[in-house]
Amino acid sequence: METLRLFDFLPSGNGYKIRLLLTQLGIPFERINLDITKGETRSPDFLSKNPNGKIPVLEVQPGQYLAESNAILIYLSEGTEYLPYDRWQRAQVLQWLFFEQFSHEPYIASPRFWISILKTHEEHQAEIEKRQQQGYAALRLMENHLQTNNFFVGGRYSIADISLFAYTHVAPEGGYDLTPFPAIGAWIDRIKSQPGYIDITED
Amino acid sequence: METLRLFDFLPSGNGYKIRLLLTQLGIPFERINLDITKGETRSPDFLSKNPNGKIPVLEVQPGQYLAESNAILIYLSEGTEYLPYDRWQRAQVLQWLFFEQFSHEPYIASPRFWISILKTHEEHQAEIEKRQQQGYAALRLMENHLQTNNFFVGGRYSIADISLFAYTHVAPEGGYDLTPFPAIGAWIDRIKSQPGYIDITED
Repeated sequence: METLRLFDFLPSGNGYKIRLLLTQLGIPFERINLDITKGETRSPDFLSKNPNGKIPVLEVQPGQYLAESNAILIYLSEGTEYLPYDRWQRAQVLQWLFFEQFSHEPYIASPRFWISILKTHEEHQAEIEKRQQQGYAALRLMENHLQTNNFFVGGRYSIADISLFAYTHVAPEGGYDLTPFPAIGAWIDRIKSQPGYIDITED
Repeated sequence: METLRLFDFLPSGNGYKIRLLLTQLGIPFERINLDITKGETRSPDFLSKNPNGKIPVLEVQPGQYLAESNAILIYLSEGTEYLPYDRWQRAQVLQWLFFEQFSHEPYIASPRFWISILKTHEEHQAEIEKRQQQGYAALRLMENHLQTNNFFVGGRYSIADISLFAYTHVAPEGGYDLTPFPAIGAWIDRIKSQPGYIDITED
């Protein structure tokens, strides 16, 4: 098999999901960095790989490209310990992955992007405050779930945890205060102690 | 097996996805209508089923609830003709499902909700115009794909089509003009001619 190529942007939580899982699976990959703040995902060459102009994109075979971080997580984890075999548990993993993209990522990731990556905090102040209301709602929901569960599904680490961890653990970079969420804090510590864990900044 | 119960809101495209697939699969179900405009999904009883307070929710066993429309689509279609068995085709279906929830639904569904359901068009005018820019980008991407594909994945009707069809075919209720998208129009006609097709307003 050819070495997988991951089109990525180092600070991206969506990209980090794939880096973390590939590392934990022991699958070697080549990381190709595109700076999204410089429009590098809007080039004709990259748009031919993902017409939606977003990273991460995984080249699974020469010329075969898969986009959408959570779709890539499922693709890579099928048949591994990171995706439950049980049908009901797998359904719950999918539920959390869609929750993450619809009710979590837009509210947790975007303030971080404006505050810590683009550094356009002032320009986006009103929008940041609006998003943080929804983001705190997502965090409260996670906190409630984690008060009685060590991991999101089936009592063990899965791609549901990887997906939700990616932007949650760096939420303070988007102005979030995680101290009112002790169950989330303990879950973050549990994930950091998983075999093969790498940091989001680790190239 | 007990009859499945679907917690739903008739005008909802997300709910319609599940109604359409269940009908095409020939699976009987009981539909429980909750009027989201009257806060009926924010009751303590419903929040105990889905803490995120959103329909659709499928009760798959008494007391076992699954949320997130696209997770429900995958759960129901596994092992059927509506989800490809081929790993790469299945990955592409997942990619389109996450595209739908992240880059399509927030922009296509919300203007329809404000204009045709809540009838608060004037109050939301600025936000509607902002969302329509992104919505038209999603439609252009779909149009390009459908110019050379009869369906989204593998040349045949799948849950990727069901998911994207739900809000696309009623986009004009959100102020969208679909006439510049002839390939989308032809695809809508192909879907309406599928065996077991039901309309979004069909209770």
